[in-house]
Amino acid sequence: MNAKSVMSRSLAGLAIAAALVLMTSQAPAEEGMWTFTNPPSKLLQEKYGFTPTQEWLDHVRLSSIRFNDGGSGSFISPGGLVMTNHHVAVGQLQKVSTSAKDYVADGFFAPTPDKELKSPDLELNVLMAMIDVTSRVTASAKPGLTAEQALKAREAEIAKIEDESLKQTTLRSNVVALYGGAEYWLYRYKVYTDVRLVFAPQRRVAYFGGDWDNFTYPRYDLDVAFFRVYENGRPVKPANYFKWNAKGAGLDELVFVSGHPGSTDRLFTVAELNFERDVHYPVLLKYISGRLAILGTYAAKGQEEQRRALVQMFGLENSRKALTGEYEQGLLNKAMMDRKALEEKEFRDKVEADPARRAEYGEAWPTIAGVVEKEAGLYKTQFYERLSGSRLAELAMTIVLYVAEVPKPDADRLPGYHEAQLPSVRFNLFSPAPVYADLEEAGLAGTLKMSLDELGSDNAFIKLVLGGKSPAEAARELIGGSKLADVAVRRALIDGGVKAVEASKDPLIVLARKLAPRVRETVQWTKDNIDSVLEPAHQKIGRARFAVYGKSLYPDATFTLRLTFGTVAGYPMNGTQAPYETTLYGLFDRSLGFNKSGDWALPDAFWANVGTLDLSTPVNFVSSCDIIGGNSGSPVINKNAEIVGLIFDGNIESLAGRFFFDGEANRAVAVHPAYIIEALRKLYGAAKLADEIEGK
Amino acid sequence: MNAKSVMSRSLAGLAIAAALVLMTSQAPAEEGMWTFTNPPSKLLQEKYGFTPTQEWLDHVRLSSIRFNDGGSGSFISPGGLVMTNHHVAVGQLQKVSTSAKDYVADGFFAPTPDKELKSPDLELNVLMAMIDVTSRVTASAKPGLTAEQALKAREAEIAKIEDESLKQTTLRSNVVALYGGAEYWLYRYKVYTDVRLVFAPQRRVAYFGGDWDNFTYPRYDLDVAFFRVYENGRPVKPANYFKWNAKGAGLDELVFVSGHPGSTDRLFTVAELNFERDVHYPVLLKYISGRLAILGTYAAKGQEEQRRALVQMFGLENSRKALTGEYEQGLLNKAMMDRKALEEKEFRDKVEADPARRAEYGEAWPTIAGVVEKEAGLYKTQFYERLSGSRLAELAMTIVLYVAEVPKPDADRLPGYHEAQLPSVRFNLFSPAPVYADLEEAGLAGTLKMSLDELGSDNAFIKLVLGGKSPAEAARELIGGSKLADVAVRRALIDGGVKAVEASKDPLIVLARKLAPRVRETVQWTKDNIDSVLEPAHQKIGRARFAVYGKSLYPDATFTLRLTFGTVAGYPMNGTQAPYETTLYGLFDRSLGFNKSGDWALPDAFWANVGTLDLSTPVNFVSSCDIIGGNSGSPVINKNAEIVGLIFDGNIESLAGRFFFDGEANRAVAVHPAYIIEALRKLYGAAKLADEIEGK
Repeated sequence: MNAKSVMSRSLAGLAIAAALVLMTSQAPAEEGMWTFTNPPSKLLQEKYGFTPTQEWLDHVRLSSIRFNDGGSGSFISPGGLVMTNHHVAVGQLQKVSTSAKDYVADGFFAPTPDKELKSPDLELNVLMAMIDVTSRVTASAKPGLTAEQALKAREAEIAKIEDESLKQTTLRSNVVALYGGAEYWLYRYKVYTDVRLVFAPQRRVAYFGGDWDNFTYPRYDLDVAFFRVYENGRPVKPANYFKWNAKGAGLDELVFVSGHPGSTDRLFTVAELNFERDVHYPVLLKYISGRLAILGTYAAKGQEEQRRALVQMFGLENSRKALTGEYEQGLLNKAMMDRKALEEKEFRDKVEADPARRAEYGEAWPTIAGVVEKEAGLYKTQFYERLSGSRLAELAMTIVLYVAEVPKPDADRLPGYHEAQLPSVRFNLFSPAPVYADLEEAGLAGTLKMSLDELGSDNAFIKLVLGGKSPAEAARELIGGSKLADVAVRRALIDGGVKAVEASKDPLIVLARKLAPRVRETVQWTKDNIDSVLEPAHQKIGRARFAVYGKSLYPDATFTLRLTFGTVAGYPMNGTQAPYETTLYGLFDRSLGFNKSGDWALPDAFWANVGTLDLSTPVNFVSSCDIIGGNSGSPVINKNAEIVGLIFDGNIESLAGRFFFDGEANRAVAVHPAYIIEALRKLYGAAKLADEIEGK
Repeated sequence: MNAKSVMSRSLAGLAIAAALVLMTSQAPAEEGMWTFTNPPSKLLQEKYGFTPTQEWLDHVRLSSIRFNDGGSGSFISPGGLVMTNHHVAVGQLQKVSTSAKDYVADGFFAPTPDKELKSPDLELNVLMAMIDVTSRVTASAKPGLTAEQALKAREAEIAKIEDESLKQTTLRSNVVALYGGAEYWLYRYKVYTDVRLVFAPQRRVAYFGGDWDNFTYPRYDLDVAFFRVYENGRPVKPANYFKWNAKGAGLDELVFVSGHPGSTDRLFTVAELNFERDVHYPVLLKYISGRLAILGTYAAKGQEEQRRALVQMFGLENSRKALTGEYEQGLLNKAMMDRKALEEKEFRDKVEADPARRAEYGEAWPTIAGVVEKEAGLYKTQFYERLSGSRLAELAMTIVLYVAEVPKPDADRLPGYHEAQLPSVRFNLFSPAPVYADLEEAGLAGTLKMSLDELGSDNAFIKLVLGGKSPAEAARELIGGSKLADVAVRRALIDGGVKAVEASKDPLIVLARKLAPRVRETVQWTKDNIDSVLEPAHQKIGRARFAVYGKSLYPDATFTLRLTFGTVAGYPMNGTQAPYETTLYGLFDRSLGFNKSGDWALPDAFWANVGTLDLSTPVNFVSSCDIIGGNSGSPVINKNAEIVGLIFDGNIESLAGRFFFDGEANRAVAVHPAYIIEALRKLYGAAKLADEIEGK
């Protein structure tokens, strides 16, 4: 599965700006997550005789959608219908489910618009404009400033640009650092928040094979969901949407993916890769295993508990499998690490060979190595000195920081609380999504226990949070005594500002107040010691790469819109060849191969209708498009910008793609459009929806 | 595919007796290729509550068949019907084919007995008796003899035992060294040479997926062929045969495999494993690639050439894939090699800790290391100083040696020419199987070129064989001028004895005469320097293992009958779980996944009948039985000794099984009986054969 990883290296406010330039001159043609301002037109012309026109690019961009909680999608009908993955939609599905009606397990279909289900807190973005603001941001850090002052100046300028843009256009406005900060771009998004569920299959159909089959292929998943976007109570009529091609793409056909890859670390320096291998991944994998153990114990209590924990568990299992692959196939892969070291040496040799380049860029590598070393010693402590595993605890911290930050001048605020960022913060704060107190308590007790185990009882954070109580006692008091599950209570605190928050006796607010100074301290320490040093070093490497390897590069992924291309093709797999596509025959084969049980069970309707289905209908297929987590739900399109697939995963061989692209075995896994139509018409009685999709 | 490897480490007459004890105390219960005189009854009782009776064991043994050219099979009807794999039968299929009628491509079915096709040179063996002759063989090497004298004494005694047994019983009689020679057993076989083909599917159905899918799983192969055994012109009525169980075995069910694993090297010393890794496998893999290149060029000339070369190419491709897996997953696997080193250290420490054991066994390891070092320096030269790639050249050498050896006292003959071995030698010498002169010439020219490249033009063997000519010229003259393709010519030379051979002007015979002294010299050098030292060292290690780890051991495989057991179970595969069985649904899925083309094309009849087939019919399944090449064609049976499957392969994860058994992922791949019946009845119009098989 390719949902944007639920875990990110960054703690709240502790982000390490790690975007780096990606491509070397030897890269295979299919490699690359290209921005729409720098599309791979030359490569496409050379290899496939196809050059996308500006009109084509604009149409594709404006038909593409970002799911702001970590996925991609697209408009696919003039009636505002949006397609994404079931596993991107599953969070919303769970939020509209109850113990009495479980749309995750049972699926959902609204035969008429009035039956569509409004999502509690789903925000969709369409990228309307991209403006190069590199010189404005760079110029803001005037010569003579210290590194800390320069960082503050850049951050202030970025906040100002975003705020001006928002006020001017009412569009969501984000400044994005590309090429390690060698470029800054202002991206403006149209925001949709009235998004209603139209169709989702049963999870066992969408996620056939479960965590076992996740990130593998051959695959047989109907990992699709449809939403409809509304504005002012009416379906939007998008000027741009993708037309449907039920035939899909043939073997070796050129295809494109337009979506939002979350992050890649392809040009991390060797020092950073060593940090990932020795510090970051071990800490993260241990934490995820701990979280899964906590949730597993909770879910074992009963069917309703299982339902409540399912989406969190899915996210963590998905992350565990992805990170394990990245760790074992990437960071622990000696051949890869050797190659990375060699590439870095060649790059640095080229920089060192030229006195001007050496003077300008040469110090960047040792600088980064020094920063990484400083970070390594503190990483685990900082990681565990925070509240996690509880949505209410996170909301409490957001409320405490929000009321304190918003009155300040924009330039002085903590990251995440700048003016242009507030609409999304408030949208999340006031989400009516259900909160389950027992799950909250189990989650918080578990993570407090983990923090205690890792930090020891003498640790200041632990003393402050536990105050001598056991993790279970503390969690019971904090969650049991909190009223934050009530949206009105949260709204009253935000509306009441600092005064209301200071007066609150809600135990989670009280705790967040105590912890807030520590959060500010850590953010400041990170700015002074990490970000202010790392950012300029990364910028230097980015510029050095331009100087040495030229401008035909793509930036590391940043959960912004990218275009990637490739061909439909199998690959060498475990001693043989993987097929380029699978069919309904294979779905039934694989279910029978596990006695129709466990993660490979299918709804009875599938077996009952096996005789009426066209079993040769393609189900999933693979292409050499270069994708990663965040691309989930991206449309696969052909040269005519028609939908020929729906990205939902990378194969297991692609997991090391976070660090390098292997064109031989790296494959993007997609749902075939024919399966979607066959299922809607013959298994779900949704012919009208199929007609809308097919434009009939 | 699990046919006995066409390549063996041993050159003709240069065998290194390398059978070693296999099991350590930590071995999982499913590990082990057990002799019928030492069945794993205790393990079976402990783990499955099942103890095979002597009657059960005798019935299974007497129903099991060895295919003497490298495979296994079994009696499955009272009418003498024998089941094996298509890929075991394919050599005979090709030998009865012509350019006009290609049974390999088109398959074969004899609806009535008179249509059955007699195999030109297929010899089947049934193991009738096993007699422990350890003390007799061991006593023959009297105290005080040199190592060379002791070896000669043992060999003479073995030849005598075999000859006496043959004369006394008329049964084929072989003395087998087990446990590295710590035990010697006389095995007596009933021999069948009138073996007629009844049914074989098209090769594309039997070998669906070709070399790509070979040694992999999930799999969809109808890798079956049926023969009928005749004696005196009538079908035999075997007293023992396996009954059929069309339901097959369920998930987790206990199953057995009774067959003939070719060879394993599980308890090679570390010195021997290093030799395999550094010398043997590199030489062998390079040679096989060279052979395949030669045959590929030949086969590219046309359809008939392709047909002629196909079986040789299949064998070589099969070996390449198996050996590459053994090399990369085994010998180049640092974790395995480290474990082997640790196991050896623990074993040797236990020997060293006891003065008596140290004195008796301690020298064995350094002795073997010394022998291996001596061998390493000469291995490649000896490997290339021989004729290969041509059946006629091999026949010529056999004829020259045969007439010289047979007049000698049995004890003085070269290995392979002892009295008891002559019937099989003559059966092969006089085979009427077709010989294709152009293929012979291409094969010989190619291997002579390889020898020239490896040895250089100054090498004595090269000078002798080429005499200044190019490899192509030499091969043209040798094959073009030879009449040995004619069985009558071969028979006349054998009947005429030394005199006829000495007088022959056949260029291959002339060359073999010149080379014979070199062969004798190499055999003698190997006896004096390798075998006479290695055999006693291996015997010591075998006895030391009995002393340290006890008697509940199984010997390394020796292409003699073994019983192995396991359960029907999937396994972790490439990030997910492999199913325990596949179905007809999956066959069609996989064909479509490659556009019904190449190695995944199916006959039209399959697509035409897709509607009448029960698509949920199981096709192949996996069990944790411990098998290796040579087990191909072995029956999989349940506790009631009913056929529930037909072994045809090991999965790719099992290839390192030559060196160690990994119970987690090592799986035996078998054809399901239901597929055989469904195909015979619905696709091949062979209901009567199906009735015979099912006992209806």
